[in-house]
Amino acid sequence: MSKKLTNRKTDYSKWYNELVVKADLAENSSVRGCMVIKPYGFAIWEKMKSQLDKMFKDTGHQNAYFPLFVPKSLFEAEEKNAEGFAKECAVVTHYRLKNDVKNPGKLKVDEEAKLEEELIVRPTSEAIIWKTYKNWIQSYRDLPILINQWANVVRWEMRTRLFLRTSEFLWQEGHTAHETKAEALDEAMMINNIYADFSENFLCIPVIKGSKSDSEKFAGAEETYCIEALMQDGKALQAGTSHFLGQNFAKAFDVQYANRDGKLDYVWATSWGVSTRLMGALVMTHGDDNGLVLPPDLAPYQVVFIPIFKSPADLEKIINYIEPTIQEFSKNNISFHIDKRDSFKPGFKFNEYEMKGVPIRIAVGQKDIENSTMEIFRRDKMEKKTIELGTVSSKVEELLIDIQKNIFSKALKFRNDNIRQAENYEDFKNIIETHGGFVSAHWDGTIETEDKIKKETKATIRCIPFEKSSEPGNCMISGKLSKQRVIFAKAY
Amino acid sequence: MSKKLTNRKTDYSKWYNELVVKADLAENSSVRGCMVIKPYGFAIWEKMKSQLDKMFKDTGHQNAYFPLFVPKSLFEAEEKNAEGFAKECAVVTHYRLKNDVKNPGKLKVDEEAKLEEELIVRPTSEAIIWKTYKNWIQSYRDLPILINQWANVVRWEMRTRLFLRTSEFLWQEGHTAHETKAEALDEAMMINNIYADFSENFLCIPVIKGSKSDSEKFAGAEETYCIEALMQDGKALQAGTSHFLGQNFAKAFDVQYANRDGKLDYVWATSWGVSTRLMGALVMTHGDDNGLVLPPDLAPYQVVFIPIFKSPADLEKIINYIEPTIQEFSKNNISFHIDKRDSFKPGFKFNEYEMKGVPIRIAVGQKDIENSTMEIFRRDKMEKKTIELGTVSSKVEELLIDIQKNIFSKALKFRNDNIRQAENYEDFKNIIETHGGFVSAHWDGTIETEDKIKKETKATIRCIPFEKSSEPGNCMISGKLSKQRVIFAKAY
Repeated sequence: MSKKLTNRKTDYSKWYNELVVKADLAENSSVRGCMVIKPYGFAIWEKMKSQLDKMFKDTGHQNAYFPLFVPKSLFEAEEKNAEGFAKECAVVTHYRLKNDVKNPGKLKVDEEAKLEEELIVRPTSEAIIWKTYKNWIQSYRDLPILINQWANVVRWEMRTRLFLRTSEFLWQEGHTAHETKAEALDEAMMINNIYADFSENFLCIPVIKGSKSDSEKFAGAEETYCIEALMQDGKALQAGTSHFLGQNFAKAFDVQYANRDGKLDYVWATSWGVSTRLMGALVMTHGDDNGLVLPPDLAPYQVVFIPIFKSPADLEKIINYIEPTIQEFSKNNISFHIDKRDSFKPGFKFNEYEMKGVPIRIAVGQKDIENSTMEIFRRDKMEKKTIELGTVSSKVEELLIDIQKNIFSKALKFRNDNIRQAENYEDFKNIIETHGGFVSAHWDGTIETEDKIKKETKATIRCIPFEKSSEPGNCMISGKLSKQRVIFAKAY
Repeated sequence: MSKKLTNRKTDYSKWYNELVVKADLAENSSVRGCMVIKPYGFAIWEKMKSQLDKMFKDTGHQNAYFPLFVPKSLFEAEEKNAEGFAKECAVVTHYRLKNDVKNPGKLKVDEEAKLEEELIVRPTSEAIIWKTYKNWIQSYRDLPILINQWANVVRWEMRTRLFLRTSEFLWQEGHTAHETKAEALDEAMMINNIYADFSENFLCIPVIKGSKSDSEKFAGAEETYCIEALMQDGKALQAGTSHFLGQNFAKAFDVQYANRDGKLDYVWATSWGVSTRLMGALVMTHGDDNGLVLPPDLAPYQVVFIPIFKSPADLEKIINYIEPTIQEFSKNNISFHIDKRDSFKPGFKFNEYEMKGVPIRIAVGQKDIENSTMEIFRRDKMEKKTIELGTVSSKVEELLIDIQKNIFSKALKFRNDNIRQAENYEDFKNIIETHGGFVSAHWDGTIETEDKIKKETKATIRCIPFEKSSEPGNCMISGKLSKQRVIFAKAY
């Protein structure tokens, strides 16, 4: 693979688009706004899924599956939710095609097969799920319901970008039902903590935990908790959200239960989700001008072997030479791939696996066999070292741990270097314009002020952080009292 | 849970419908023909998925993800395939809703947001995938492509039944591309063998492997291999299919590659799939008048503990008493669930877990503590025994293996007892009418004869079996020469 990746400094957006394709993560499809997730990209998503799935199950959640379609009458039942998604809905109106008599071999919609009621392709599943929960919940004995669903959803986006904003995307959506407000709030908070843990310890993406301002909340939620990450271009990315839905959906779908006092009450709800957007966050947090950089815990294979050979006999010798090492790898759960292709030169392969972000590359040639060595290269620091054969497996084990740590530390340093405090609005505008990043500032809590700032600077409130590191103060616009600083940024 | 399951003899169809709901597998949703797969049912599907996924990966396949929607112009490119699915397509025509001014709070389709080209919700993904493969394949070096996708698909069915025939269902669909015809044929056959292995050894469902007659082939395939199972009511169920697609899709989407001689040639293809229909097959193969019977390899939990207690203190004693046993279970990878609910009586719980098909139930009461015993019940034979405490774990291990074997043997015996040879058409009609089951008979290979039989008896050719146990003969209708017997049955 020839290195033709645009530099991040030259054009970050172009760099991202190129990287996603060149690293074989995803590509645009023939369907407007929908992507094809390629095997290498999908293998990373599968690792994310399996880790998150375990975290959900360990905290008592079960998976289930609900319909792809939402009848319009259900969709509109919770008005705020409906309003929030109505403008970006794919709508199924017919259930049959027929031959187009004017164009032999072509098909057209059969107007006689019009649905009585239109079906919305789910943009999110609260409506269809709460309609179902109504039949499942009679008494407090039926609670809590702790269900998660892995699914595809569709939001008709006008401007799309691979992973970051696509008309169809993959996600998980948790939907829980509880006896009490406190229990539902705890659930929403616990899930937001799981998201943060997953993001920092597995994806190596540092996040700020907080709650959303009213204007940034999920449509239909009372409270939205979130984790916010910072990309290398200084723009924020919302990496996961967990919503306390109050009794809104229970009321919209009339879901009441007999409580412990024998009285009827509405059920309390949460919903929460992360999506294939995390793939975009991963690329933009760790990638460099040579391509993707993958945390070892997430890499489809952690090590790639590149045999340097000119003849099939050479290759065979090398394969025999690495055999004991790969046996040790298997024993130690180190995943690997051996690239035996003879149609590409080693240099090409080096670039290819750098582009794909494989954490460790091991090159083995004739000289290594003579010297009982292997050449080990770590992707995150782009450093190589020649290692004695007997120590390879233990060295690789150490390195994988170190790489996982280093990738996180680097991202954390960048993120922390890019949280700036603004003491007044001039300051604020200046920081947003010249540095970007997160800006911590005082805000009076009103939508008007938020709107003004957004209009004038394009920065939005990313979250009201849970960690109150700052003193009370005065809103930088209105001068009114502010209990704590909030985090602003331009965002994806 | 009160036993109110209809007997299989009284009404097999009603028995099935009730069982699926009472065992908490699935239920109908508010969307016509679409089901909700409940947590217990979904946990079984997850076990199926994870086993199949492993088998695919072990044979070199990778997962990927392609769009939910197929633009109409792509959909109609392979004519036979399009024709096969046109009559059951969900069609997206609009991408926005707007407020219905006449009905405040309601929404209506925004006629201004009409798509230029309609999108079909995928009934299967050959079209969108082959459009994508065109860009991936230039030379023989790019082949083979061995990709699988786990996805939801939609086929607008008029008469639906949970799992067996639903408008939306979950499945996996493999789509492979090859240099040669022989390689593609081998792939299709290998996958059919994987399906048979999975079905018999994991689901305990015996199957007949064979190929489909022309009229039963997949729309767009040259050859369809299949596995056919027999349900307890004597009707057949197609449990999986693997298609050799020839060069049909390569030609429809102009996918050519430079072969080893440097000449352009069309790529050879296969596709293959199994779906949530297997859940229906599982219920109908093993279920009895008490409910579901699950093979231990597939059970969400293999053992359920029912403590027999009257007070919290009793319960605590029992929990302490079973502690060493569950520790041994965990060590030996035996999955279990302890039902500590105090709101239901033991008898109710017994019925509930019989309905859910949990392979082994262990009841523990005060007497067991006194006698150092546990009462073990195996679901498949409805037998219970009192066992000494120290031997419980090893006994359960043995039992789980024995249950898996016994469930298969029982189903195999039933299947074998219900394969009958018909020597002439009178025989044939008589068997179909009085016994049902598989009928092995001679057929002249023509569609006309097949149609006549179908019209007169409702039986279809399930497959032309690979295992040619029978001699050549003469078609029971036309008297023409027949190389081998084929398998007929009425089918789901």
